[in-house]
Amino acid sequence: MSSSPIKLAIVGVGKIVRDQHLPSIASNPCFSLEATASRNASVDGVAAFKDIESMLDECALDAVALCMPPQYRFTAAKLALESGKHVLLEKPPGATVSEVERLHALATEHQVSLYTTWHSRYGAAVATAKAMLADLELQSVALSWKEDVRKWHPGQEWIWQAGGLGVFDPGVNGISILTECLLQQAFVSKADLSFPENRAAPIAARVIFKTCDGIEIDGDFDWRQQDGEAWNIDFTTDKGVMQIRDGGAALRFNGEEVSVPGHTEHGEYHAIYQRFAEIIELGISDVDLRPLKLVADAFLLAQRHSTEAFYE
Amino acid sequence: MSSSPIKLAIVGVGKIVRDQHLPSIASNPCFSLEATASRNASVDGVAAFKDIESMLDECALDAVALCMPPQYRFTAAKLALESGKHVLLEKPPGATVSEVERLHALATEHQVSLYTTWHSRYGAAVATAKAMLADLELQSVALSWKEDVRKWHPGQEWIWQAGGLGVFDPGVNGISILTECLLQQAFVSKADLSFPENRAAPIAARVIFKTCDGIEIDGDFDWRQQDGEAWNIDFTTDKGVMQIRDGGAALRFNGEEVSVPGHTEHGEYHAIYQRFAEIIELGISDVDLRPLKLVADAFLLAQRHSTEAFYE
Repeated sequence: MSSSPIKLAIVGVGKIVRDQHLPSIASNPCFSLEATASRNASVDGVAAFKDIESMLDECALDAVALCMPPQYRFTAAKLALESGKHVLLEKPPGATVSEVERLHALATEHQVSLYTTWHSRYGAAVATAKAMLADLELQSVALSWKEDVRKWHPGQEWIWQAGGLGVFDPGVNGISILTECLLQQAFVSKADLSFPENRAAPIAARVIFKTCDGIEIDGDFDWRQQDGEAWNIDFTTDKGVMQIRDGGAALRFNGEEVSVPGHTEHGEYHAIYQRFAEIIELGISDVDLRPLKLVADAFLLAQRHSTEAFYE
Repeated sequence: MSSSPIKLAIVGVGKIVRDQHLPSIASNPCFSLEATASRNASVDGVAAFKDIESMLDECALDAVALCMPPQYRFTAAKLALESGKHVLLEKPPGATVSEVERLHALATEHQVSLYTTWHSRYGAAVATAKAMLADLELQSVALSWKEDVRKWHPGQEWIWQAGGLGVFDPGVNGISILTECLLQQAFVSKADLSFPENRAAPIAARVIFKTCDGIEIDGDFDWRQQDGEAWNIDFTTDKGVMQIRDGGAALRFNGEEVSVPGHTEHGEYHAIYQRFAEIIELGISDVDLRPLKLVADAFLLAQRHSTEAFYE
């Protein structure tokens, strides 16, 4: 690693930044948090700016982490890359596939690192599940990603707006684990999306994916779950059912708990910042758009259904 | 070119095959049409099969042109590529972006050529327009792609089904010209899609694209046009307005007709088969997914509107 820490700034200071990014950065000697840019929020003891333009003008920075809603991510990322900063993108990496592909080209052009993070891939069970799957013959997959939107996204108006992804905002986490673990590429074969009659984004979705060899993946996404969360992927194989549970934190095989590496409190985001430091050191980008492409393909192929209005 | 012609088969024999593919193949000495596979149609004097499986089993072929609706394209393309055949895909190349990316990887793996055709790019005016644009400073773009669906797509039920693309089935032709001519990548910034209340695909769309440098492209797609077609792209520049008209056939600059290379009756498809022969000879693929990605992004970002039911 470089001898002096990477001078980092965060753009968009919300719940995920306070809960995950700040403790992960604080505990990582590779980074020093120099500034934030956010319309309404700031972090104690760190230089605060209202927008990224003034922050880039006034601060000496090496890298920025962009954590605002995806609809506003491209302009900020472009500015940062063109200013020679390394860029970390919270998930989903942007509002569209094409814009993130353009950012990738810009990063290459300006010789800086771009990182499209998918935090759920660093869940404690994921690497073990992937390794086990390599020795099994996969027959079918069932993905359930269900939670109560009122509990998990209170007051988040942007997720309901056009481009806000709706139930795929959490659902893409499951898809990111799926694409990480599968040995074959999956793509969308059929999609049914349910839009509340007063909202521009889906509250529920059923997506049938298929792998190239015809293995079916039944994806069930729902924001109307009342009794606890279901963030699980069941892989049915020749030797039995392997279950990734709790959003990637736990693993079972034929109903028995499988031991996975211990996980610290901020394990996923700690791993993300380790990887960010690593790609900066290596001088490469880490851009994987498969999860977002699959969501875009689901919208492209979807049969749309209108459902009960949603009021928070 | 190889000394013996490329043994070609067509899958999906419909209007576009009879109007364009057959005359283009007949006039091209690089190809010999050996067979067709189609549920209900055949071509006089050519071996006819009901499905691609039996055709591949029984015929010695070098290449296939897949002209069925995009929802059915992947399975046939996979089979053909895995059988070592070169594959030409009518536009749009597939039902989803991810599946065509997978086909590209399969083509590479099996050392055959995959060609995602965009016939409108071979319109007589397109190459001239692209060359002129390189010397102009672009300020804004207006794309109009309007036609009467009853006139141009009679009885085509699949275009109204989920995944049939609706008004983007012709609209992607305009987008394919746009992406060919622009020097910068464009991406979707805002989209409004109007779905007839009894249909799964949009009858009209307004899409605002932006280039990386912020140049705005106003895309207006409509299938309810009554008085003639409007298949035009207006590029406003520092020197005046350059207009691609008639779907790529004609060019104007500040209202004056610009001379473009002469165009034979089947010019676009003749050029497509020339290019197909060329990439087979070179041992490469020609896969450009930008037009389909932009359409997928428009669906992903779209504000959806319900409009009057459509009956043919």
